[in-house]
Amino acid sequence: MFSILRINHVAIVVEDLDAALDFWRDGLGLEVTHVEEVAEQESMVAFLPTAESEIELVKPTSETSGVARYLRKRGPGIHHICLEVDDIEACLAHLAERNVRLINAEPILGTGGKRIAFIHPESTHGVLVELYELSPQEDEIRLTRARELAQRAWDQGQLVADGLRELVKGLREPD
Amino acid sequence: MFSILRINHVAIVVEDLDAALDFWRDGLGLEVTHVEEVAEQESMVAFLPTAESEIELVKPTSETSGVARYLRKRGPGIHHICLEVDDIEACLAHLAERNVRLINAEPILGTGGKRIAFIHPESTHGVLVELYELSPQEDEIRLTRARELAQRAWDQGQLVADGLRELVKGLREPD
Repeated sequence: MFSILRINHVAIVVEDLDAALDFWRDGLGLEVTHVEEVAEQESMVAFLPTAESEIELVKPTSETSGVARYLRKRGPGIHHICLEVDDIEACLAHLAERNVRLINAEPILGTGGKRIAFIHPESTHGVLVELYELSPQEDEIRLTRARELAQRAWDQGQLVADGLRELVKGLREPD
Repeated sequence: MFSILRINHVAIVVEDLDAALDFWRDGLGLEVTHVEEVAEQESMVAFLPTAESEIELVKPTSETSGVARYLRKRGPGIHHICLEVDDIEACLAHLAERNVRLINAEPILGTGGKRIAFIHPESTHGVLVELYELSPQEDEIRLTRARELAQRAWDQGQLVADGLRELVKGLREPD
């Protein structure tokens, strides 16, 4: 059997990322951890975590993607909610047995190797639901990213240290 | 200054509570903690917690409420998201200063004495946002409810114990 673990994120499709951040970041005081281009969604996404969940502001970068079509048809607003599940295959099999209409009958690969699948709003009472199972690779990818960041910070620190050494040398020269 | 603490709940307006539970409870395996009539929303609400947040399924009980009108106009789907904030007055003051359109400029009282206020979708990029500050009374009310439940369980346990005692007595009588 499987378990839903938490609301992973609520995705809001917007026309203008900066204008949206004006409310969600500057108005509500939520922190933006990063903004990145998510190629498979043809979108630019800003991530604003709060406790165990995230608000994601999604701006389409093409005219053809699902989010772009949604925006044209319904205007800005909540596009989907994503639930984290501990066993996505078991969950999809259980839903298929119950004749739930699945957009992805099998999990597809999302950013960072995570496995995701969408459930059609027809079966959920009007809500596009994304299921998401954290992959072991994702932890590794996050660790690698954190290490790269740390390395960059260290290198920059070294540059500062070298600069300071030169400066101190310069200050001492009059002696 | 104030802080947003978490996504408190995502409210989904539905036409039929039992049909919606067929997916959200029986399909996804989420647990329903309780179903209650929320008078001020003219709705019947089913609460399905997951980690620190809840999915709330909302079925209008009148034709005139906001949720009833939403359902007629847009069909079933996500009605609003609710964010818990540690200081709702400070948050509303900050938003008002930034010319955010507030549905409630001052907090109104929700169930259990909690203070809530809605922000107009016009200012949030299409999302009806509820702000929510937990009140000290709410903890008390929850505690009272838990105590009542415990008392009822104890009383039922006593009945079972009495029944067993009678049963054992009956079994011994042949001696």
